[in-house]
Amino acid sequence: MSIRVTVWGENVHEQTSKVVQEVYPMGMHNCIADALNEDPEIQARTATLQEPEHGLTEEVLQQTDVLTWWGHAAHSKVEDQIVDRVQAQVLEGMCLLVLHSGHYSKIFRRLLGTTCSLIWREAGEMERVWVCNPGHPIAQGLGRYFEVPQTEMYGEPFQVPTPHEMIFSSWYQGGEVFRSGLTYLRGNGKIFYFSPGHETYPIYHQPEIQLVLKNAVKWACPVPGLWLDNYTRKATPPVEDIQERGPKLHEPGSEGLR
Amino acid sequence: MSIRVTVWGENVHEQTSKVVQEVYPMGMHNCIADALNEDPEIQARTATLQEPEHGLTEEVLQQTDVLTWWGHAAHSKVEDQIVDRVQAQVLEGMCLLVLHSGHYSKIFRRLLGTTCSLIWREAGEMERVWVCNPGHPIAQGLGRYFEVPQTEMYGEPFQVPTPHEMIFSSWYQGGEVFRSGLTYLRGNGKIFYFSPGHETYPIYHQPEIQLVLKNAVKWACPVPGLWLDNYTRKATPPVEDIQERGPKLHEPGSEGLR
Amino acid sequence: MSIRVTVWGENVHEQTSKVVQEVYPMGMHNCIADALNEDPEIQARTATLQEPEHGLTEEVLQQTDVLTWWGHAAHSKVEDQIVDRVQAQVLEGMCLLVLHSGHYSKIFRRLLGTTCSLIWREAGEMERVWVCNPGHPIAQGLGRYFEVPQTEMYGEPFQVPTPHEMIFSSWYQGGEVFRSGLTYLRGNGKIFYFSPGHETYPIYHQPEIQLVLKNAVKWACPVPGLWLDNYTRKATPPVEDIQERGPKLHEPGSEGLR
Amino acid sequence: MSIRVTVWGENVHEQTSKVVQEVYPMGMHNCIADALNEDPEIQARTATLQEPEHGLTEEVLQQTDVLTWWGHAAHSKVEDQIVDRVQAQVLEGMCLLVLHSGHYSKIFRRLLGTTCSLIWREAGEMERVWVCNPGHPIAQGLGRYFEVPQTEMYGEPFQVPTPHEMIFSSWYQGGEVFRSGLTYLRGNGKIFYFSPGHETYPIYHQPEIQLVLKNAVKWACPVPGLWLDNYTRKATPPVEDIQERGPKLHEPGSEGLR
Repeated sequence: MSIRVTVWGENVHEQTSKVVQEVYPMGMHNCIADALNEDPEIQARTATLQEPEHGLTEEVLQQTDVLTWWGHAAHSKVEDQIVDRVQAQVLEGMCLLVLHSGHYSKIFRRLLGTTCSLIWREAGEMERVWVCNPGHPIAQGLGRYFEVPQTEMYGEPFQVPTPHEMIFSSWYQGGEVFRSGLTYLRGNGKIFYFSPGHETYPIYHQPEIQLVLKNAVKWACPVPGLWLDNYTRKATPPVEDIQERGPKLHEPGSEGLR
Repeated sequence: MSIRVTVWGENVHEQTSKVVQEVYPMGMHNCIADALNEDPEIQARTATLQEPEHGLTEEVLQQTDVLTWWGHAAHSKVEDQIVDRVQAQVLEGMCLLVLHSGHYSKIFRRLLGTTCSLIWREAGEMERVWVCNPGHPIAQGLGRYFEVPQTEMYGEPFQVPTPHEMIFSSWYQGGEVFRSGLTYLRGNGKIFYFSPGHETYPIYHQPEIQLVLKNAVKWACPVPGLWLDNYTRKATPPVEDIQERGPKLHEPGSEGLR
Repeated sequence: MSIRVTVWGENVHEQTSKVVQEVYPMGMHNCIADALNEDPEIQARTATLQEPEHGLTEEVLQQTDVLTWWGHAAHSKVEDQIVDRVQAQVLEGMCLLVLHSGHYSKIFRRLLGTTCSLIWREAGEMERVWVCNPGHPIAQGLGRYFEVPQTEMYGEPFQVPTPHEMIFSSWYQGGEVFRSGLTYLRGNGKIFYFSPGHETYPIYHQPEIQLVLKNAVKWACPVPGLWLDNYTRKATPPVEDIQERGPKLHEPGSEGLR
Repeated sequence: MSIRVTVWGENVHEQTSKVVQEVYPMGMHNCIADALNEDPEIQARTATLQEPEHGLTEEVLQQTDVLTWWGHAAHSKVEDQIVDRVQAQVLEGMCLLVLHSGHYSKIFRRLLGTTCSLIWREAGEMERVWVCNPGHPIAQGLGRYFEVPQTEMYGEPFQVPTPHEMIFSSWYQGGEVFRSGLTYLRGNGKIFYFSPGHETYPIYHQPEIQLVLKNAVKWACPVPGLWLDNYTRKATPPVEDIQERGPKLHEPGSEGLR
């Protein structure tokens, strides 16, 4: 059975910037989805900010193994209840690939708990992406490094918690370095942050970038977990026979406060 | 110089429950602050939900090395902008001790990114708190374990990210177990979650609990860090001499999107 | 294709203790291998201390996806060069399941770097194993907890580094608690430590224990990684054109010191 | 009270290489110790491979808060029992700073469990060390980055477990990048690996390098922990009243096997 991917695109620059339209006539989301669909194990579709519920209905998420997220100009336009929904699904086991400027997205900051701030420069310089763990599934098929001819610089300090694994480390012609490929676990969801992908350059057309995305999709856990949050609401009967003692705040059978 | 602690209390049950009033006539926050103030190295004051800005003004937070957080019935009453402020301060290096039902507080869930759900039972049963790391500063002065005569049971599964360190593991008379003392790092802030502390029992009067809180305050980093988030807003000039190339989205001198 | 498992057994108590012989007439290793082989996806064979090279030749390890390790009385009899070999294979991506008293094995202590010490008691008491992460692949098919009717107590403090994930937490009738299921990553190898399994009780005959072992085997990474340690021996030519400067210690073409 | 530092030097190149003698007439260890001793809070002495017990007697280690380790040509000459001793002390709470080629030392590999392999080149090129966490105590007083005019390149992949924190990331003129400042916890010991420090260049004379070492010494935990490994040898009496049941392997009062 295929891995079901939903490629989420903010789809704003594609409407407003001629430069971006020329690089991605069908939008970045379609470019990414098309690349993923070249792989017979992957079945990718798209969703965008402008659709009802941003294209991320309960039904869509239930049928999504891996969600990719690209946003930049309209992070604040993403409705909180959709972010809640995506977060809940990630904690249940859906994989999330956060791309480039998605580092400032509501969903990434919410899952990580930090500002996710970094330094940046838009100068079309070259980025050299080094592989820190050549045996990692996400790095399979790559050499020791690859180059992105034109990129936006993202540099340290990058305020994120210590990652589960560091897969890539980038250097930019202007001199900076950056932790450009990081994995996290939150609940049962695997998260992969991958920094290349500025909208004014043809980065998602590049074979190495597409390979990383395909690898990352396959690295994703295909078996959603079973964190049953709602079974935690009511008081749990004891395993051992105990005598209840002392004062209580909760009425019998009531749900806990939260 | 003393370690400056602000003991934050939700202070709701203290107003509404006779049981809680009897156990904590001055409120749990004052009980905790008094215990901390017995230590000559610590200078603790209180703040509560009902005060303007919940007692957590910019000025108060700037003068706080360690913030302790107890909340239960009114998590949703805590204003988001105060949560933003506390989070920012933690990321800059303020230490945060999250107590008992604070596991569902906005600030804890925001810093951890998960539901922080758990199972629970209010039956006045005994809790035995085991020390997992006898050499950790937070466990100094304790034996192999100590007992809380009457407690609310908090049990696994506890949906939190893998902690930085696990200090305590609790067992309850009714049979469950729980990771009852966990540390995290977010930005430069140290976070300690400690589960004992139900409002209807005199847990914060217990010497071992007070010792853990004093230890945790001292374990806190006294030197706030220097994550200068705002210096990341404008584009960063390169270190190496590079020639800007290609199309750009950002106007010269503009701030990045977020 | 099947997952190839090698079940390593120290096989000493089976030769010297009548009690153990009665519980495991064919040895613990055969009991474990038989259980694993009930699963059509798994193909398990055994290896023991007494065989040449402890049954762990280069060829055997090359054909092993997952190695399980049970040892107790003869940790010091395991030859260091075999430990070197197993460690190298784990770092390349072979999965390692360390069972019960294997916590003091050379291979586990070498991969973790700590004493791996714990407290213990052999009193045939009951152990209740709680699931900390119900959505984890290793916990699939289990309820909230299961019980081992007779077990050896292993208690905190357990001196191990912070694990990658905590899957199980045990409580014993005598009162102690223990982190009984932990995962680690070292190189590309996944490691799972699972504490139940004392030799004088029929623990490996128990369905829940066998289920955990099967789950853990499947959780193992099937694609060995590609950490090419030896390509790091000789000096690496630069990517950028640089002029060599200054004094050197190494002769051109020589291998580095280690 | 001062922080007591023992600066351990292999002291081999200093005897055999004229180049190294010129850069470090008194040996690298004395250069490092002198720099540390400029700080009134630090009291540093040296120890070398050639001394009895490599200068690391039980007494010396008992009086050491922080041990720094530089080795390159003679890792295999370090006696295993001294490595055992240092490891035990680290697990009890002594801090360890591992410098440059010390990545291949017995003690570092033993504490980390991986090969600690990396790529390298001795070409006297420039290294730019970037600060990943400007708020970390080890980075205080530094700017966004500093440069080492002549260095030996150490590049990814660096086979180490995921660190506790990543403080520095280096780039080299020849193009490679490297995680050049990493922290770990093992038992109660804090470990800091810092890669600059090749013997043929005057790196330990450089103010920024000396500042990092002083900062790292102060970051070290001053209160050694209390992991009492030996209290785990004999069986532990139960907390709850239990009836011993079933067969036993251990004689009453005997020590456990390991």
